[in-house]
Amino acid sequence: MKSKISLLTLGTEDIKRAAVFYKALGFVVHGEEDEDHVMFKAEGTWLALYSKNLYEKEMGIAPTGEFSGVVMAHNVGSKEGVDEVMEEARAAGGKIVKEAYETYWGGYAGYFQDPDGHVWSAAWNPFTDLT
Amino acid sequence: MKSKISLLTLGTEDIKRAAVFYKALGFVVHGEEDEDHVMFKAEGTWLALYSKNLYEKEMGIAPTGEFSGVVMAHNVGSKEGVDEVMEEARAAGGKIVKEAYETYWGGYAGYFQDPDGHVWSAAWNPFTDLT
Repeated sequence: MKSKISLLTLGTEDIKRAAVFYKALGFVVHGEEDEDHVMFKAEGTWLALYSKNLYEKEMGIAPTGEFSGVVMAHNVGSKEGVDEVMEEARAAGGKIVKEAYETYWGGYAGYFQDPDGHVWSAAWNPFTDLT
Repeated sequence: MKSKISLLTLGTEDIKRAAVFYKALGFVVHGEEDEDHVMFKAEGTWLALYSKNLYEKEMGIAPTGEFSGVVMAHNVGSKEGVDEVMEEARAAGGKIVKEAYETYWGGYAGYFQDPDGHVWSAAWNPFTDLT
């Protein structure tokens, strides 16, 4: 396999609620939305929402609502940009996990959760440009 | 924010074990590896490994080892390609969650877990080209 995550899919208990959140953050739906699946076209890896119940039926393992250690970062070019993303997340109904702060590794980042508890970081990284 | 996941970070209990797995799949390390953090350059969203303990210290929430409903897909252009990725994953020490099968949505996909339980799908999607 080549080094690529093609699509990141987030299990959700309420796909309408989750879709409202991601649209509020600016993600644009690709194709048709249905009650079990919504796909968002994105720069780089695409993002999708999928029914947790269907995941359990498909894979035979049930998603938990807890933090699994997966964090999606959205990188921006400045500290002010991080503050702006945190405000966007708050306005979209995200739960602020940790307000933006000077990280130990020399960056500036904050954490928020989507309605299902999936964790995002808004980050400024002065060493590696992932914007 | 623009529609982009810049970096996907996977919490790990054993960063060396996880790094061996991702290198075996062909991911190439960016910069220096250290005992708490490894970053892989990838097409689209980058991938990183990070100490679960540090996540807990940073965010105040402890990662669980359970399936959170996050699935990373690696898309390929054919069913045979899916079978090949599944074999690569098996050879790399991945746990096969579900062997590749004809999905209800008209594709062909299998599921495997990395050493920390993070779920990947190897997928052929005849409707949307994410390869």
